[in-house]
Amino acid sequence: MAEKKLVGIIMGSDSDLPVMKEAADILEEFGIGYEIRVLSAHRTPNQTSEYAAAAHQKGLKVIIAGAGGAAHLAGIIAAFSPLPVIAVPIKSKSLDGLDSLLSMVQMPPGVPVGVVGINQAKNAGLLAVQVLGASDSQIQDKMLSYKRKMEEDVIKKDQNLKSKLK
Amino acid sequence: MAEKKLVGIIMGSDSDLPVMKEAADILEEFGIGYEIRVLSAHRTPNQTSEYAAAAHQKGLKVIIAGAGGAAHLAGIIAAFSPLPVIAVPIKSKSLDGLDSLLSMVQMPPGVPVGVVGINQAKNAGLLAVQVLGASDSQIQDKMLSYKRKMEEDVIKKDQNLKSKLK
Amino acid sequence: MAEKKLVGIIMGSDSDLPVMKEAADILEEFGIGYEIRVLSAHRTPNQTSEYAAAAHQKGLKVIIAGAGGAAHLAGIIAAFSPLPVIAVPIKSKSLDGLDSLLSMVQMPPGVPVGVVGINQAKNAGLLAVQVLGASDSQIQDKMLSYKRKMEEDVIKKDQNLKSKLK
Amino acid sequence: MAEKKLVGIIMGSDSDLPVMKEAADILEEFGIGYEIRVLSAHRTPNQTSEYAAAAHQKGLKVIIAGAGGAAHLAGIIAAFSPLPVIAVPIKSKSLDGLDSLLSMVQMPPGVPVGVVGINQAKNAGLLAVQVLGASDSQIQDKMLSYKRKMEEDVIKKDQNLKSKLK
Amino acid sequence: MAEKKLVGIIMGSDSDLPVMKEAADILEEFGIGYEIRVLSAHRTPNQTSEYAAAAHQKGLKVIIAGAGGAAHLAGIIAAFSPLPVIAVPIKSKSLDGLDSLLSMVQMPPGVPVGVVGINQAKNAGLLAVQVLGASDSQIQDKMLSYKRKMEEDVIKKDQNLKSKLK
Amino acid sequence: MAEKKLVGIIMGSDSDLPVMKEAADILEEFGIGYEIRVLSAHRTPNQTSEYAAAAHQKGLKVIIAGAGGAAHLAGIIAAFSPLPVIAVPIKSKSLDGLDSLLSMVQMPPGVPVGVVGINQAKNAGLLAVQVLGASDSQIQDKMLSYKRKMEEDVIKKDQNLKSKLK
Amino acid sequence: MAEKKLVGIIMGSDSDLPVMKEAADILEEFGIGYEIRVLSAHRTPNQTSEYAAAAHQKGLKVIIAGAGGAAHLAGIIAAFSPLPVIAVPIKSKSLDGLDSLLSMVQMPPGVPVGVVGINQAKNAGLLAVQVLGASDSQIQDKMLSYKRKMEEDVIKKDQNLKSKLK
Amino acid sequence: MAEKKLVGIIMGSDSDLPVMKEAADILEEFGIGYEIRVLSAHRTPNQTSEYAAAAHQKGLKVIIAGAGGAAHLAGIIAAFSPLPVIAVPIKSKSLDGLDSLLSMVQMPPGVPVGVVGINQAKNAGLLAVQVLGASDSQIQDKMLSYKRKMEEDVIKKDQNLKSKLK
Repeated sequence: MAEKKLVGIIMGSDSDLPVMKEAADILEEFGIGYEIRVLSAHRTPNQTSEYAAAAHQKGLKVIIAGAGGAAHLAGIIAAFSPLPVIAVPIKSKSLDGLDSLLSMVQMPPGVPVGVVGINQAKNAGLLAVQVLGASDSQIQDKMLSYKRKMEEDVIKKDQNLKSKLK
Repeated sequence: MAEKKLVGIIMGSDSDLPVMKEAADILEEFGIGYEIRVLSAHRTPNQTSEYAAAAHQKGLKVIIAGAGGAAHLAGIIAAFSPLPVIAVPIKSKSLDGLDSLLSMVQMPPGVPVGVVGINQAKNAGLLAVQVLGASDSQIQDKMLSYKRKMEEDVIKKDQNLKSKLK
Repeated sequence: MAEKKLVGIIMGSDSDLPVMKEAADILEEFGIGYEIRVLSAHRTPNQTSEYAAAAHQKGLKVIIAGAGGAAHLAGIIAAFSPLPVIAVPIKSKSLDGLDSLLSMVQMPPGVPVGVVGINQAKNAGLLAVQVLGASDSQIQDKMLSYKRKMEEDVIKKDQNLKSKLK
Repeated sequence: MAEKKLVGIIMGSDSDLPVMKEAADILEEFGIGYEIRVLSAHRTPNQTSEYAAAAHQKGLKVIIAGAGGAAHLAGIIAAFSPLPVIAVPIKSKSLDGLDSLLSMVQMPPGVPVGVVGINQAKNAGLLAVQVLGASDSQIQDKMLSYKRKMEEDVIKKDQNLKSKLK
Repeated sequence: MAEKKLVGIIMGSDSDLPVMKEAADILEEFGIGYEIRVLSAHRTPNQTSEYAAAAHQKGLKVIIAGAGGAAHLAGIIAAFSPLPVIAVPIKSKSLDGLDSLLSMVQMPPGVPVGVVGINQAKNAGLLAVQVLGASDSQIQDKMLSYKRKMEEDVIKKDQNLKSKLK
Repeated sequence: MAEKKLVGIIMGSDSDLPVMKEAADILEEFGIGYEIRVLSAHRTPNQTSEYAAAAHQKGLKVIIAGAGGAAHLAGIIAAFSPLPVIAVPIKSKSLDGLDSLLSMVQMPPGVPVGVVGINQAKNAGLLAVQVLGASDSQIQDKMLSYKRKMEEDVIKKDQNLKSKLK
Repeated sequence: MAEKKLVGIIMGSDSDLPVMKEAADILEEFGIGYEIRVLSAHRTPNQTSEYAAAAHQKGLKVIIAGAGGAAHLAGIIAAFSPLPVIAVPIKSKSLDGLDSLLSMVQMPPGVPVGVVGINQAKNAGLLAVQVLGASDSQIQDKMLSYKRKMEEDVIKKDQNLKSKLK
Repeated sequence: MAEKKLVGIIMGSDSDLPVMKEAADILEEFGIGYEIRVLSAHRTPNQTSEYAAAAHQKGLKVIIAGAGGAAHLAGIIAAFSPLPVIAVPIKSKSLDGLDSLLSMVQMPPGVPVGVVGINQAKNAGLLAVQVLGASDSQIQDKMLSYKRKMEEDVIKKDQNLKSKLK
C-alpha cells in the first residue's frame, strides 16, 4: 500500500466490507494510499464526527462512505468535513437499496455528497482517483490508460463474440 | 405554555415550522410543556449532537424531529439520546416525501426511531402525549377523552351527512 | 421473564414469530415483562379490539404490533388504545415490505402509530424500552449502557479491521 | 332514491364525499337503493364494526368503502361482514394514492376486498351494480344497455374527431 | 365438482395454474361449480372476447381473471361482459407484481374490475363466493362459518403460542 | 395531408387529443399520410379489434396508440395486428403515468409493443417516420435532415447562452 | 444465417448475451439476417457512435439495443442513427430493471427509442420483424402465421387443461 | 468571473438554465472560473463527446452535467473524460425526477458519476469547490468559512424562533 493516505474509506458496519473492498482494490491498482475504517453514524457518532472533522488536517483528500438503509453516514461526514464525500448506497435487505440511495442523494442545499450506483464501491474508488487526478497529471494519465484498457477489453469481447457466433 | 418542558420539537430548517407547529399545538392542547428548536444534522451538527446528548439530563422525556429529503435529523438525535425519538418525514420538493420517509424509517438495528406519516406532525404530538401518558394516568385520561371527542365528531359528521342527503 | 407485563407484543399471524421474537429478546435483555399474542385485525377483529381497549387497564404501557401486506393491525390497536403503539412492517411476499410500511405509517390525523424499519422488531423492542425509560431512570440508565456497549462493539470491529488489513 | 337499500357506501371522512358521491350517482342512475355513511376505522372503530357485522342482516348486498392513506376501512369492514366489499383508494396528499391502494389491495388470505382504481368511485358503483346484476337479470340488462351507451358515445366521439379533422 | 358452473376462472397462461388453482380450491370447498380456462388477451384475443361476451348467457355469475406483467386479461373480459370481474395480479419476473397490479386496477371510468392482492387467487375465490352469497343465504351462511372457522384457527394459534412460551 | 394513409394514430379517449396531436404534427411535417381514431379497448372493444385486424390490409404500415391508466389499447391492437405498434403512455391523474407506462411496456413474449416516454407522442411520430424510412430512402433522408436541424438548433442555443452570459 | 444483415443486435456487455440471444433466435426463425455486437455507450463510446452513424449506410434497417442500470446504449445509438431503435431494458442487480426501463424510455423530444418489456429481447426481435414486415409482405405473412401459431398453442393448452381437470 | 476556467457546467437544454445557474452562482461566490454550455447527449452528440474528450486538456478540473428524463448527459461525458463528473438530475415532467436520478446514478462499473440531489445544482457547485479544494488549501479554507457561515445562519434562525415563540 502507498505510504501517504489520501483517501478514507468508511463503512457503517464491517458487514459492508465485501462491497467496500472494491473501492480499496481500485486505489491499490492506482497506487494511491488509503485507510479503511468502520464508523457508524448511529452507533459511534462521536468517533464519526471527530474523524470527519479532522480528516482534511491529516492529509486526506477524499472520503468514500458506504452504508445501507437509512444511510446517514456520508451525510454526517459531509456535515463535518470540507472534503469531497463520495457515497456508496449499500443494497438493503428489504427495499433493494432504494432506501439507501434516497437517504444519501437527497442532501439539503449547502452540504453536498456525490453518490454512485447501488453497491458500486468500485466506481467510488474510480471517482476518488478522478478527483485526485484533477490536480495530478500523473494520476490523470493513469486514468486515461485505465479507460483505454477498458475500451480494449470491450473491443476484445466484441471480437470474441463475433468469432464465436460465426 | 406549561412550565416544565417535557418534549423537544426539533426541525432541520425554520421553513418546516408550518408543518411542525401542529405538534406544538397538540402539546398546548394537552397542557404539556415543550420547546421548539431549529437544529440541522448537516449545518449545525455540533449543536444537534450536544442537544441530543443532554436532552434527557435536562428533563425532556420525548423528542420529536421533523426533516425532509435525506432526512438524517431524527436518526442523529437517536444516536446521541436514550429518549424515544418520534420522526416526522417532511414532504419534499421532488419525491413527494418518499425520500424523507425512507431516510427516517429504515434505521439500523440498535438505534430506533418511531416514524409517523408524511407531514403528520399532529400525530407526532399525539404519540408524544401517549408516551407521557404511559406513566401518567392524568395524561392518559385526557388522551381517552381526546379519542372520545374524535369519535363524537365523526358521529356528528355521519349524522349531518344523513340529514343533508335526505 | 419479569413478573409485571409492561409491553404487549402482537402479531397478525404466528408465521411472524421469527421476526417478532427479536422484540421479546430485547425486552428479556432489559428485564422488562411482556406478553406475546397472535391477534389478527382481519381474522380475529373482536379479540383484537377487546385486547386493545383493555390493554392500558391491565397495566400495559406500550404495544408493539407486527404485520405484513395490508398491515392494519397496528392502526386498529391504536384506534382502541390510548397507549403508544409501535408498528413493525413485516417484509411481504411480493412488494418487499413497501406495502406493509405504507399501510402502517400513513395513519390519519388523530390516531398515531410509531413505525420502525421493515422487519426491525429489535428496534421496536428498543423503542419500547426508551418509552418506559422516559419515566424510569433505571431503565434509561440501562439504555445508556446499551448504547455504550454498541459503541464499544463498533470500535472493536474498527480496530479488528485495521489489524486485519495491516 | 329507491326504497330498499342494497348498497352501503362508507367513507372514512366526510371530506371524501366529492369522490364517493360518484358511486351514489351510478346507483341512482340504475335505480338501486343505497345509504351513505361516514364511519372511520380509526376514529369510530366500534360504529364501523357494528355496522359491518349487521349489514347483511338488514338487507345490504354490497358494501363500497373509500379511504385514503393507511386506508384500513375496507379491510376492517371485510373482517366483520360476509358481504362483498368494494374498496376505493382515495388519492392521498403525499404519495399520490399509492399508499391508499397498497393498504387496501394487499389483504391477507381469507379476507378479500375487491379494489378499483384510485378515486374511481364511479367504477365501484358500477361493480356493485354488476354484483347485484349477477342474480337479477333486469339489473344485468340495464348494465348491458349502459355498456352499449358507452360504446355509442365513443363511436360518436370518433366520428366527431374525423369530421373535425377533415 | 358441482354441476352448475357459476364461476369462470380464466388465466392468461397455463403457467399461472399453480397460483390460480387456489381460487378453484375455494370454490370446491364451498361446493360452487366453476370452469377453468386458458385464454390470453394477447394470443387468443378472439377466443377471449367471445368467451367474455357469452359468459353471462350460459349461466356464469362471476369471472375471475389472473394475469401478469401488462395484465390486460381482466380488463378485456370486463370490456365484453356485464358480469363482475375479479382480477388476480400475478407476481411478475421483474417488477414483483407492481406492473400486474397497476395494469389491472387503474381501469378507466365505466369498466370496473375488482382487484385482489398479488397472487391472492384464494381471496379471488372467496370474493366470488361473497358475490354469490349476496343473493343466496345458504352460501352466505357458509361464508359466515368460514369466517368463524378462521377466527377459531387464529385463537388456537394464539393459545398455542402462549403455552409454548410459558 | 398526404393522400395515402400510412400511419394510424389511435387514442382511447378524445381527451387524449392534445397529447396525441403531436404525433400527427410530426407526420404532417414529414409529409406522411395518417388517420386519427378514437377507439377504446374497454368501451369499443369490437371496433378496436376490427380496426386492428384490418389495418395492414388497407395499407397502414405503423400504428401509434396512446392511452392512460390501465392502458390496454396498444396491447390489444398488437394482439390483432401484424404491424409494428408504438405506444404512448398518457400521464394519468394519480400515479403520474407510471401505471400507463408499466401497463404498456411489460407485454408478454410473442406480442411486442414499442413504448416511448410518457406523453411523448412527438417521439412516437418520429419513430413511425423512422420505421417507414427503414425501407424508403427519401423519408430516411428527411429524418437525417431533421436530426441535423435539431443539432443546429442546440448549437445556436449554446452560442446564444455564451453571448448572453458574457 | 441469412446473407443480408438487416438488423443489428447490440449489447453493452457480453454478460447480456443470454438475454439478447432471444432476439437473434427470433430473427433466425424468420430467416432475417442480423449481426450481434458488444458495444458500450460508456466503455467504447467511439465505436458505438461510429457503428450507429454508419449502420443505415451499410444496409441495416433496425437496431436492437440491450443494456442495464443507467442504460444509455439505445439512446446514444438513436442520437447517431436515423434507423428505428428498439430498446431492451436488462434486469439490473439492485432495482429489478426499473432503472434500466426508465433510463431507456424517457427519451427527450426529437430522439425516440421504442422500448419493450424488461429482459424481453424476444419481443424486440419480433418488433424488428414487424418493422421489416411493414414494407415486405412476405415477412408480414410470416408474422401473421406466427401469430396464428401462438393462438393455436394457447388453444391447445386450454384444451389440455380442460381434459386434465375433468 | 475569474480568468481561468476550472469547471464546465453543461446542460442538455437551455430550459435547464434556471436550475443549473445555481451551480454557477456558487462558483462565482468562491471566485472560481467556469464556463456554461448547452450540449445534448442526444441532439448534439458529436459536440458533447468532443467537448468531453478535450475538457481536461484545456485546463478544466471538474465537469457538472445537468439533464432530465432519460438523462444520459453526465454518463456520456464520463465516458469520454478522465475528469470527475458531477451529475444534477433535473426534475422531470412526469416521474418527479426519479427517472433522471436513476438514469444518472446507476452507471456501470468503470465509468463513475457523482450524483447530487434532484435539482440540487447548488450542491453540485459546492461539490466542485470541494474537489478543487482537495488540492488547494485556499479554496478549502473558503469552504470551511462557508460551512461556518451556514452554521451561524441556522443558529440565528434557531434564536429568532425562540424569541418569536416567547
